[in-house]
Amino acid sequence: MQKNKNTSPRQTVKKTVRTQRVKKDVKKTGKVNSFEEKKPVKIAFLGGLNEVGKNMTLYEYEDDMFIVDCGLAFPDTEMLGVDLVIPDFTFVERNADKIRGIVITHGHEDHIGGLVYLLKTVNVPVYATRLTAGLIEGKLDEHGILDDVKINCIEAGDTVKLGKFEVEAIHVNHSIPDSIGLAIKTPAGVIIQTGDFKIDSTPIDGEIIDLARFSQLGKEGVLCLLSDSTNAVRPGFTESESKVGESFSTLFDKAKGRRIIIATFASNIHRVQQIMDIAKNTGRKVALSGRSLEYVVEKAASLGYLKVPDNLLVSIDSVNSFPADKMVIITTGSQGEPMSALHRMAFSEHRRVSIIPNDYVIISATPIPGNEKTVGRVVDELLKLGAQVIYEKMYDVHVSGHACQEELKLMLGITKPKYFIPVHGEQKHLRSHSALAQAMGIPKSNIIIADNGKQVEITENKISVVNEVPAGKVFVDGYGVGDVGSVVIRDRKRLSVDGIIVVAVTVSQGLIINGPEVISRGFVYVRENEELIETLCVSCEKVINDCLYDGITDHNSIKNRIRDEVSRLVYERTKRNPMILPVIMEV
Amino acid sequence: MQKNKNTSPRQTVKKTVRTQRVKKDVKKTGKVNSFEEKKPVKIAFLGGLNEVGKNMTLYEYEDDMFIVDCGLAFPDTEMLGVDLVIPDFTFVERNADKIRGIVITHGHEDHIGGLVYLLKTVNVPVYATRLTAGLIEGKLDEHGILDDVKINCIEAGDTVKLGKFEVEAIHVNHSIPDSIGLAIKTPAGVIIQTGDFKIDSTPIDGEIIDLARFSQLGKEGVLCLLSDSTNAVRPGFTESESKVGESFSTLFDKAKGRRIIIATFASNIHRVQQIMDIAKNTGRKVALSGRSLEYVVEKAASLGYLKVPDNLLVSIDSVNSFPADKMVIITTGSQGEPMSALHRMAFSEHRRVSIIPNDYVIISATPIPGNEKTVGRVVDELLKLGAQVIYEKMYDVHVSGHACQEELKLMLGITKPKYFIPVHGEQKHLRSHSALAQAMGIPKSNIIIADNGKQVEITENKISVVNEVPAGKVFVDGYGVGDVGSVVIRDRKRLSVDGIIVVAVTVSQGLIINGPEVISRGFVYVRENEELIETLCVSCEKVINDCLYDGITDHNSIKNRIRDEVSRLVYERTKRNPMILPVIMEV
Repeated sequence: MQKNKNTSPRQTVKKTVRTQRVKKDVKKTGKVNSFEEKKPVKIAFLGGLNEVGKNMTLYEYEDDMFIVDCGLAFPDTEMLGVDLVIPDFTFVERNADKIRGIVITHGHEDHIGGLVYLLKTVNVPVYATRLTAGLIEGKLDEHGILDDVKINCIEAGDTVKLGKFEVEAIHVNHSIPDSIGLAIKTPAGVIIQTGDFKIDSTPIDGEIIDLARFSQLGKEGVLCLLSDSTNAVRPGFTESESKVGESFSTLFDKAKGRRIIIATFASNIHRVQQIMDIAKNTGRKVALSGRSLEYVVEKAASLGYLKVPDNLLVSIDSVNSFPADKMVIITTGSQGEPMSALHRMAFSEHRRVSIIPNDYVIISATPIPGNEKTVGRVVDELLKLGAQVIYEKMYDVHVSGHACQEELKLMLGITKPKYFIPVHGEQKHLRSHSALAQAMGIPKSNIIIADNGKQVEITENKISVVNEVPAGKVFVDGYGVGDVGSVVIRDRKRLSVDGIIVVAVTVSQGLIINGPEVISRGFVYVRENEELIETLCVSCEKVINDCLYDGITDHNSIKNRIRDEVSRLVYERTKRNPMILPVIMEV
Repeated sequence: MQKNKNTSPRQTVKKTVRTQRVKKDVKKTGKVNSFEEKKPVKIAFLGGLNEVGKNMTLYEYEDDMFIVDCGLAFPDTEMLGVDLVIPDFTFVERNADKIRGIVITHGHEDHIGGLVYLLKTVNVPVYATRLTAGLIEGKLDEHGILDDVKINCIEAGDTVKLGKFEVEAIHVNHSIPDSIGLAIKTPAGVIIQTGDFKIDSTPIDGEIIDLARFSQLGKEGVLCLLSDSTNAVRPGFTESESKVGESFSTLFDKAKGRRIIIATFASNIHRVQQIMDIAKNTGRKVALSGRSLEYVVEKAASLGYLKVPDNLLVSIDSVNSFPADKMVIITTGSQGEPMSALHRMAFSEHRRVSIIPNDYVIISATPIPGNEKTVGRVVDELLKLGAQVIYEKMYDVHVSGHACQEELKLMLGITKPKYFIPVHGEQKHLRSHSALAQAMGIPKSNIIIADNGKQVEITENKISVVNEVPAGKVFVDGYGVGDVGSVVIRDRKRLSVDGIIVVAVTVSQGLIINGPEVISRGFVYVRENEELIETLCVSCEKVINDCLYDGITDHNSIKNRIRDEVSRLVYERTKRNPMILPVIMEV
């Protein structure tokens, strides 16, 4: 997330005013209207990557549609050079005239990150709680479309009318404030989509998930529940965020006399709050390192979600002018990301912060699958510099933002849905969640394990997959959205493994008049390579002369012969398969 | 590991005969000779990647040297196109005339995989136990150097004289049979290097680690202990391999009536033995899928380390002619490796095995850090095909081959070393192991946490790092060893992220006579790209003409101008940084 001059506090205030509550189509929770006839409601899962029903969900009832969330995913290692992955918007674009709005459940990247790209194509009203709206505005501003988009601020308890849908926001606990679940009232019945949630009885902002409302809906009758499956394989309860504060207090005691550096997710405002409070109580100053962290802290503070004690914050530039034992540095990079602040500190590349032997580093996060190795490397480097490092499960310095099995069962138990669709997870999570629901008495035939691109239809008497709709990964690379696809990625993959050999030659009237010149990149060191390059030149010359002698003048035929010959020779000599690119210039 | 016609059982027997016990320089364990004067003993850590003291260790006493293990590592994701990583042999080559031999502790790739490359440069006698020797011979044979190398078969209890060193092999438990630790007797004192080990009271081959011998050495006095740190952050004891057999029995019961597919490490012969035994007892046939697995099973069976019940094994080609509930397929791919048998099954690319909804798949391994995501993807695909999958810690279907904290403390307690060097681990493991040793009463000043490339010197009164020696990663890519280095990797990285743009032009006497032609690979789809390519052609033409007009004929200068112009334009338009390769042909 880029911070620029347009997001200064003053303008943020202006923007906040701009996103005022829209009275017209928002009203306080009421009973569902009774509707004349019951058509099926359809739910399409449009998100990308492995997790089903995570980044984007589309609800359809007759001619009305609305979208829940529009997130991004970060590329897998094999998506070479790709910056971001967003959902395929084809199905949304095709139905643009039916879309009544987009409701966002919370401000994490995997729920809001695709929104700017969607709104550039299909500009419909956005509904989000205040903090979420603030974070979305930052992104719209960055992309220069802030003034083109209508964001409607809602709060838990509000109901938004979107065509024949009435969507009610319900407060839930999660690792970012202002998260909501949704009760979606349709003529066919009420559908609950929990969003990402956990049950936190001692949350930092004091507001427990609105179990009463979920229960009430359960009593009134819930047609279908879509519930967060992230932790569905984990037994028990997820610990409260407050637990982390207790651990921090203990660790701050242990670290007395030493500098403390804590890496956490930028968006975990409750954690930042706890660190700030303990820092204040122990007489330490706090400095922030990492652009996204600075941005979120500023935003959350200006909107009142973060209470920054007076005179606590100091600039990272001035960090060395305070005694080490009076400092806490909060930093990004808890996943070991190569350009992050913590990574730069570990590899002695941070402009302001040099790790010193007495530093006490706390990584307040668990590696997301796939990041274990990068986190491990950062820990290793920090240890080599002599820092003490608290990581993984050494202390309770991290709790999940997602419900574990007992919480999931509770949600199933109080909402008593007729049908169930586990969402937000990979197959193993969805299947585990399905097993929990079956243990709670929901028949297997009333549960659908969907996949991205599936459209599920629900009537009073039936749930089934009815349709396959366009969905999947669209790659964002630089300014390009969707212009990098499988062919480009395949080429990049090949280039990355064995490099490229360019063979250039100029021919004129059936004779070689310059070249062939053989140039390689990413293949082997040129020095080690001279003899092979020489051989390739000689062979190519022969191949081209043979072609010209045989009267073959078609460039594609000559190129194919060059490609075959070079590939064969190179593989024979090196067992490698570089890309071969012949260039023939005719004069 | 490639299986070829030279490794048929008959020839294996011949080879086994060939590697007879060498009586001359091997004798049964005896007391250490008393030596005239005590010089320091030096230990250099030459291994690659993050783990210290793992792949290769070099001992030095006056003019005598010997090596312990010579392994390989698998490349990190950023080592693009690299097949294997082996240690840097510079220091060994420099001291070739002093090297008296190489002792191998066990047959895992990270301990034997670099040997063929080393022996091609420095051919010295190899000492290994029978199974280890058998596995090494397979590799030598593959590289065509089997007849050039002298392998001496030893067994636990033997002592080998290597110059002034006497090296005694001591039986240890590990996840491959025939593993040994070493007692290295030097004039300066006895050094114990445990090798990879665990303490298994109910091992599959019946032989518990020789704690008595370690204790006896401890009573006689141990100067220094080098001990396996892999699990030094894990409390408690590592479970016995037998535990896995119990779990398998339970799971075979659960899977009654269904086909069972078990993925495990090819080299875990004890696990394969347990699977075969249970398969026999439950009236199932066993088929093997995966070349390395077939090779190791054949080798281990021919050497007597694996007892394959009669008529149990069937070919993977005939797997479909047996009823599903009478089959167990043992397969490679427990780490989700993209070309492995299990991966191919999961993605429906296996020629013989198609996953059917009732299949019962057991992944009998824990993901090695960095492989979590690939394993997760394989599990996901198997679940989508309707298989039931047992993975991670769902049942005890895997135990580690390495000692946990209580075992490590026991080893420290019975060997009572004066000095201690934790090895085989990353910094966090080494530091944790060091803390254990301190808790056992070894003063911090008597412990060295080394790093690759460090040489440690030990005398009766002192341990210290005395020297920095050449060590590090050498990349093997195809047939090339060391010809791919940081420049090539940097180029591959750049190619992989944004691709390449080639600008080719023919000039003659200060005029462009053909081109410029602009060709891209791995950049963006050509269709989406036409206008940009057109712009680049026009700009390059102008740049070149300007140069020629200004009398600049030096090709490097023109190329630099082309590179600058194309880079600038491409970045401005796409925010990407492809590699730019100008080719100028002068006729």
